[in-house]
Amino acid sequence: MTQTPDAGGAPKEDGRRLRYRHRREELRQAATEHALEHGIASLSLRTVAETAGVSHATLVHHFGTKERLVAEIVEEVLTRAFSSPGLVAGDEDPLRALWRHATSERGLRSLRLFAAVTGHALHDQPELAAAVRRSLDERTALLTTGLRRAGCPAAEAAPLATLALGAMRGLVADLLVTGDRARVDAAVEVLLADLARRAATWRAP
Amino acid sequence: MTQTPDAGGAPKEDGRRLRYRHRREELRQAATEHALEHGIASLSLRTVAETAGVSHATLVHHFGTKERLVAEIVEEVLTRAFSSPGLVAGDEDPLRALWRHATSERGLRSLRLFAAVTGHALHDQPELAAAVRRSLDERTALLTTGLRRAGCPAAEAAPLATLALGAMRGLVADLLVTGDRARVDAAVEVLLADLARRAATWRAP
Repeated sequence: MTQTPDAGGAPKEDGRRLRYRHRREELRQAATEHALEHGIASLSLRTVAETAGVSHATLVHHFGTKERLVAEIVEEVLTRAFSSPGLVAGDEDPLRALWRHATSERGLRSLRLFAAVTGHALHDQPELAAAVRRSLDERTALLTTGLRRAGCPAAEAAPLATLALGAMRGLVADLLVTGDRARVDAAVEVLLADLARRAATWRAP
Repeated sequence: MTQTPDAGGAPKEDGRRLRYRHRREELRQAATEHALEHGIASLSLRTVAETAGVSHATLVHHFGTKERLVAEIVEEVLTRAFSSPGLVAGDEDPLRALWRHATSERGLRSLRLFAAVTGHALHDQPELAAAVRRSLDERTALLTTGLRRAGCPAAEAAPLATLALGAMRGLVADLLVTGDRARVDAAVEVLLADLARRAATWRAP
């Protein structure tokens, strides 16, 4: 693995460091927009560099490899799709808020790319699998912890988190493919009702 | 749309017709194996023709366009993943049988390709979306009918079918990405338990 800070032309002074950190975030955003617009099938450090108006060397300096850049794009699109003010602990129905946020226009645009990245990772671009796996593992762990905090028994938490995220993932795919929002939203309500029924037993005295 | 039977060199006699029908099925299988092996990102009528050892014209004669060929590949991989003797009506737990069949080595190989096709359809190859949508609509309709026959109220059937298939789709993706079979199987058991609890109310006197 290339250590980015040691790659050619690493910044030495604090001022440059700050500027480079800012530049890195800018490039990450530009790369994500590039992928949302053009997909990742033909994405390369060179095409992203051209779009962002920087040299190939600059992009290598900041991200090392195409795989690392795609990993950052995956994180960025999932953050855009799932970060939601409604997801703080104690919110009345965090999973419904998650669904609403994920299936907004902005959320779906990101999840469409995530589905494409997953498809590539599973078939013709296995080098992307690590990034997809890490994002999936992290989100499962996060919801498992949330369920435990809500009183879910230890043995149930991971299966429930896996089911809730898996169902949402599959239902987003349905919505993206069919556009049939009424049917898919009704399915989410069934899922949420079943989860609520289980949660009610945790709170029982 | 190209009408295959009217394309150049259409067979006239019964004997040739039969041979061509047989040949078409052979080509469909060869194209599916090609896609399973190499993915569909680079699939073309020409590459499939080369692998199958037939002329480009023969493949055009049988399938018309690349999109139609991919639609047939999608149908073939879903048939391989989901056709199961356990799925006949009256089987004790048809959804568990479906899951076991879909997550066998053969089933997962097919579903990996289906995930890739869905990814392409959603992003860089929108011309594949119709085939994916048709397969999804058909399976939702099939399970909706099955649930209605099992006594599920009309208003619940489509949402439940959508949820069950969506959850399985998302959980297959989890399994393909993480390989964590124990956690994913446990999630399926939660899904099946919740469905069974609902089904029990349908059979109540």
